[in-house]
Amino acid sequence: MPHIDFTPGVPGIRGPMLFSPETASPINDLANTLLRANASLPDQTLSMGERELIGTHVSALNDCHFCQTIHGAIASHHLGDDDWSLIQAVKCDYQQTDISPRLKTLLTIAASVQKGGKHVTPDQVAAARAEGATDRDIHDTVLIAAFFCLCNRYVDGLATLTHHDEDLYRQRAAHVAEAGYVDGEIYTVK
Amino acid sequence: MPHIDFTPGVPGIRGPMLFSPETASPINDLANTLLRANASLPDQTLSMGERELIGTHVSALNDCHFCQTIHGAIASHHLGDDDWSLIQAVKCDYQQTDISPRLKTLLTIAASVQKGGKHVTPDQVAAARAEGATDRDIHDTVLIAAFFCLCNRYVDGLATLTHHDEDLYRQRAAHVAEAGYVDGEIYTVK
Repeated sequence: MPHIDFTPGVPGIRGPMLFSPETASPINDLANTLLRANASLPDQTLSMGERELIGTHVSALNDCHFCQTIHGAIASHHLGDDDWSLIQAVKCDYQQTDISPRLKTLLTIAASVQKGGKHVTPDQVAAARAEGATDRDIHDTVLIAAFFCLCNRYVDGLATLTHHDEDLYRQRAAHVAEAGYVDGEIYTVK
Repeated sequence: MPHIDFTPGVPGIRGPMLFSPETASPINDLANTLLRANASLPDQTLSMGERELIGTHVSALNDCHFCQTIHGAIASHHLGDDDWSLIQAVKCDYQQTDISPRLKTLLTIAASVQKGGKHVTPDQVAAARAEGATDRDIHDTVLIAAFFCLCNRYVDGLATLTHHDEDLYRQRAAHVAEAGYVDGEIYTVK
């Protein structure tokens, strides 16, 4: 049961976003800029799927069911991972998957950020650079991981509604992958 | 030494914000909406000083020197704590200070959010309500704490420049308390 009075049936972060649209708007702006990898970020090389995968990884480490499932579904949509097998494998042990060596080094940095900023080491950054990561890639990875540490805490710190309807996550993921993070969208679960 | 190439001498979060103004803008928007307690948040009762104090508390728990010092200085500015004695006492043991009982219960919730969203308990929320906290107060406390978990990780995850010049923190605090969180401001330390 949520800690505060949300509109019934609205799942995950959409509950507090509907409660507080004034703060939802800049959060969605940051999500669109950081995760949608559009032309507004200069010199960026990380794809939308890779960005969502970093967020999914951090959400799984933070044990946030809503975030890891919806962003995992969005990552899968972008990456053509229709049966979610890649996402599940990354959550289990990303070193054993066939994602790029560069992305593996960035997931290592993201996992350090999840623990705390000071856990990121020069060796981890050097390993990412050795695989071709740029300053922009490292910056974005740190900020994506930090951003999901916000979102996961926002979702679970208010005990928002979680659901387990995979089809609904897939539908939402397809919509978000197309339209981005939009203010004021409301949907409910049974 | 920072993990990526920032403009030399620019301290703390201003380094990555100057590197990536596209993401700095929504982060500043969120800070102004959430920490400045202006009329845009309906039914809010937490003062700017109390909001900054919650952020300072979380930043201290995350051991982020830059954030706990600048936001501690801003909180002190708002609260008339000229010698920073209240801020230091809150960081040491807020239960023994003369802040309001309501604020103590909200700092307890914020400390749980710092550990992870699921650490917030119904008993902690009930204790805050018993001291008069509203849904808005509880929502804002959770989001402020979550937001500082982002900022602390952004600052330390990129190993940004930290300085120890108290006078400079005081000057910046007075400016931010007056002007808010402004895009594109640059200052440097020696």
